[in-house]
Amino acid sequence: MSDIKLSSEEYSQDGILRVVPLGGLGEIGKNMMIMEYETGNSLDSIIIDTGIMFPENDMLGIDLIIPDFSYIMDRLDSIRGVIITHGHEDHTGAIGHVMEHVRAPVYATPLTRGMLEVKLREAKLGDEVTLFTAQAGDTIKMGPFVVEFFHVCHSIPDSIGLGITTPIGLIVHTGDYKFDHTPVDNWPPDFGKLSEFSRRGVLALFADSTNADVLGWTPSETVIDAAFDDVFREAPGRIIVGTFASLISRIQQVANAAQNHNRKLIVVGYSMVENVKMARELGYLDIPDRMLGSVGDATNLPPEQVVIITTGTQGEPLAGLGRLATGKHRNLEIQAGDTVIMSSHPIPGNEEMVHRIINRLIQRGADVLYDPVKPVHVSGHAAQEEMKLMINLVRPRFMVPIHGELRHLYLHGKMAAGLGIPPENIAVVENGAVLTFTADSLTIGERVPGGYVYVDGSGVGDIGPTVLHEREILGRDGFVIANVTLDRDTFQPIGQVELLTRGFVYIKESSDMLRKARATVTDMLENNIRTSQQDIQQLVEKTLEKFFYAETRRRPMVFAFINEV
Amino acid sequence: MSDIKLSSEEYSQDGILRVVPLGGLGEIGKNMMIMEYETGNSLDSIIIDTGIMFPENDMLGIDLIIPDFSYIMDRLDSIRGVIITHGHEDHTGAIGHVMEHVRAPVYATPLTRGMLEVKLREAKLGDEVTLFTAQAGDTIKMGPFVVEFFHVCHSIPDSIGLGITTPIGLIVHTGDYKFDHTPVDNWPPDFGKLSEFSRRGVLALFADSTNADVLGWTPSETVIDAAFDDVFREAPGRIIVGTFASLISRIQQVANAAQNHNRKLIVVGYSMVENVKMARELGYLDIPDRMLGSVGDATNLPPEQVVIITTGTQGEPLAGLGRLATGKHRNLEIQAGDTVIMSSHPIPGNEEMVHRIINRLIQRGADVLYDPVKPVHVSGHAAQEEMKLMINLVRPRFMVPIHGELRHLYLHGKMAAGLGIPPENIAVVENGAVLTFTADSLTIGERVPGGYVYVDGSGVGDIGPTVLHEREILGRDGFVIANVTLDRDTFQPIGQVELLTRGFVYIKESSDMLRKARATVTDMLENNIRTSQQDIQQLVEKTLEKFFYAETRRRPMVFAFINEV
Repeated sequence: MSDIKLSSEEYSQDGILRVVPLGGLGEIGKNMMIMEYETGNSLDSIIIDTGIMFPENDMLGIDLIIPDFSYIMDRLDSIRGVIITHGHEDHTGAIGHVMEHVRAPVYATPLTRGMLEVKLREAKLGDEVTLFTAQAGDTIKMGPFVVEFFHVCHSIPDSIGLGITTPIGLIVHTGDYKFDHTPVDNWPPDFGKLSEFSRRGVLALFADSTNADVLGWTPSETVIDAAFDDVFREAPGRIIVGTFASLISRIQQVANAAQNHNRKLIVVGYSMVENVKMARELGYLDIPDRMLGSVGDATNLPPEQVVIITTGTQGEPLAGLGRLATGKHRNLEIQAGDTVIMSSHPIPGNEEMVHRIINRLIQRGADVLYDPVKPVHVSGHAAQEEMKLMINLVRPRFMVPIHGELRHLYLHGKMAAGLGIPPENIAVVENGAVLTFTADSLTIGERVPGGYVYVDGSGVGDIGPTVLHEREILGRDGFVIANVTLDRDTFQPIGQVELLTRGFVYIKESSDMLRKARATVTDMLENNIRTSQQDIQQLVEKTLEKFFYAETRRRPMVFAFINEV
Repeated sequence: MSDIKLSSEEYSQDGILRVVPLGGLGEIGKNMMIMEYETGNSLDSIIIDTGIMFPENDMLGIDLIIPDFSYIMDRLDSIRGVIITHGHEDHTGAIGHVMEHVRAPVYATPLTRGMLEVKLREAKLGDEVTLFTAQAGDTIKMGPFVVEFFHVCHSIPDSIGLGITTPIGLIVHTGDYKFDHTPVDNWPPDFGKLSEFSRRGVLALFADSTNADVLGWTPSETVIDAAFDDVFREAPGRIIVGTFASLISRIQQVANAAQNHNRKLIVVGYSMVENVKMARELGYLDIPDRMLGSVGDATNLPPEQVVIITTGTQGEPLAGLGRLATGKHRNLEIQAGDTVIMSSHPIPGNEEMVHRIINRLIQRGADVLYDPVKPVHVSGHAAQEEMKLMINLVRPRFMVPIHGELRHLYLHGKMAAGLGIPPENIAVVENGAVLTFTADSLTIGERVPGGYVYVDGSGVGDIGPTVLHEREILGRDGFVIANVTLDRDTFQPIGQVELLTRGFVYIKESSDMLRKARATVTDMLENNIRTSQQDIQQLVEKTLEKFFYAETRRRPMVFAFINEV
């Protein structure tokens, strides 16, 4: 820090600081934010995080969701840097989409950088993007912004928060954090830095709200060690631990327990293998070679010497646990006596899928342990008392809750008000809200686009509400298509009316009804006075819609082709 | 009880007792069970509960699910009675479907009977079915079964468990229960009866497992009184309480809090109004007339004198809270200063919808309180310590966990084993498992059909896995239909190839791709050597599937009509 001044003297202090959250407000995930400083003759900006979110249950067919960052598209030249606070998907996942357009360097800590490199290679941007490694403690100047990286504890190592000195004041951005006094990597939160910020005076705090509805204090990662120790001591056979591939510190805890109980660690699944490899190379995982077993060892070694670690704790049918639950894994199957540890919590919306996998694992003879039955997972996010501590450590003038659904932001805002921050200085807003700061004011402006962009297959943004609504109807009641051939002179039907239907009724058992439907259409056509082909098409469709609703109380999509010969 | 002997001397003790759970095992909801006693020359049975369950997120378009009760269809004559343990949907909802076939009387306590009458009237069976009122404490003889109703605490008044004396031993069925020492209706659990059963010797215990993964003891309903009191004292404006219409005791608690804080109670929504009316008539709700307000009062009275109670806490878009959240309620809208209390927990699978409604209520200016932020709801089911108490009070020889997903049954079984019941005497099984008891043995037989029957619109059971799978594909990627006309002599395409698509891509923005697709099909047809109409159809379908996958990485359903002229 010594060589960089904490001010940007070349920039006027009469400028305007704008912060536009493009994700992470009013929803869980796809965290992204742009911060820009504008003076009479300059516009400079930085981007913080580029996350994705996973679709909700009624976003049918959507693979993932990226932020709507059209706001930055006409100010690409102003961007001085892109900062990624840690390596989770909801902060990194859209890096490829964003860096297709942005020509500024990306700053990240070593582990985060390792994860970004994989993503940029997949997006074929490996050679295009300049990546800089920055460590917690480093200070980097990006135009008018002097950015100090500080260490925070989260469920992935090498996570950072940001102190951003702007010409009009200091902004603190917590990233994702919890106050863990005994983290797995023995690197506690940087309370000193937070207090220093407070002493220097903080204009605004942007703070993680994910767990704003959780009372108390999130337990330390180390409570898991005790639970693992219990389970590893008592498990009669193999142990299979499911967790996120990015939960590097959890992988370390599993490795430690394996070592203490003389079990080989067998890493299963592409993303888990890749992450373990990279984290070991970068020194973020301490697992000696001799401890690692092959997939073959999982079946060949005595069961009490085996620990398997894999993914699939969110119920994904194609991940490790999903395949084990359905007996579809290539190399492994559940044996009686296996103990499965679900070391994660379901992301909201995944509960049913997760419970289904637990039920199926039990069906196949495994004992399955999960929180709260056994404390084998803790959250990586601060709970209410930690949030209050953060606010009181930093004592900002303005407070902006970020990262969470509106209900979390709202609760976080209520907490801040309870700690004495004037309600008018707290901005509980949604994505796309333009927040304008001066040295002594915060104004909430109009919203710019900051919503969802759906990614489906290789299409980005070509699916909107219309297509989703069609999918909803199709998914609920299916479709019926009639193919009708008419004599162009007599307008009388030629041959049979064909009906094609899917997703509506079980065809074999409904042949009577379908025959009746064809007859109804044929009758209607024979008695109809022709007006136009379009009229006939509409008549056929209306007739079938009415018929099927009367028969089934369902409303499939109905279409007709009218061929004239 | 005095006039009925606790034995059935006319039945041989050498018979076989069979219990077949047709619902409620391996899933939450649709609880139903048949118990039958067979001797050389007799077969007699009773049915316990006739519940429905609500579909999971991937059961597309399904309205509800009833038990597959085909097992009872060829033994309808053997049924001596149908017992409903309490008035919740997951125990009563299929009464109409079952009583279409069964010609035995239905036994229920007064409040449960009131709820059944409504359902039977809706199913047009009001005049067909004989209903008998039985009170906790009553003993009823049904063939070889002598059934003692005993009081249990649950989240609806008038809930019962059953002691069933059979020729070979006493079976205890808990119904849904919790051990609440301070229930709202001041009627504590009947510990005396449970101890008496234990003294008489219990062959088998069938016990509620719903909360088997909840540690400790479920809080009493009365903790809610304190929370309501806090909220009612502090709320600056109107209070809107959302809860289940069947949660009669919760409605009483809201009424009590309203009375204590001088607010009028305004009941909103059809099912809520109906249930309040019936429960007041039957004496299960004590709400004086003068306390009740009209919907108009909700807007006309000073806000601090208003409490509104309505439904919609599961995120249902058409229920009270759902309409308020989207601004689509006929008579009411959210005002700044409103406090909304969500007095329920999301049923697993509903989380996203519930959170969305909370977010939208906040967006409209309401303060929203929900557990765990404020203890405004407690479960109606026993937690682990209560389950252990039940087992130790009853001390059965055999133990069958019921009501829950497999993971709950499994955990409940583990608890029973931990309390000293030999593992071979504990049956953790799924729906349709035939459990055969003699005076000293329990055998788990083959499974009979005991799965789902889907109800969709007016169709019962006409939707199976095939249709659901089609709906899944349609809901994910939509469909494309090609309509092709060929010259029957030259086999060359006549006119344009028509393409109809829904749920696949946004048509306006994809016109280029669809034009390319038509051209690709036309090219293929012009260069094709005809073999048969069917071959051409398959070729068109394959060509389009390949084309669209290459363009979009999606796999819509593709079909072709080939018309020859």
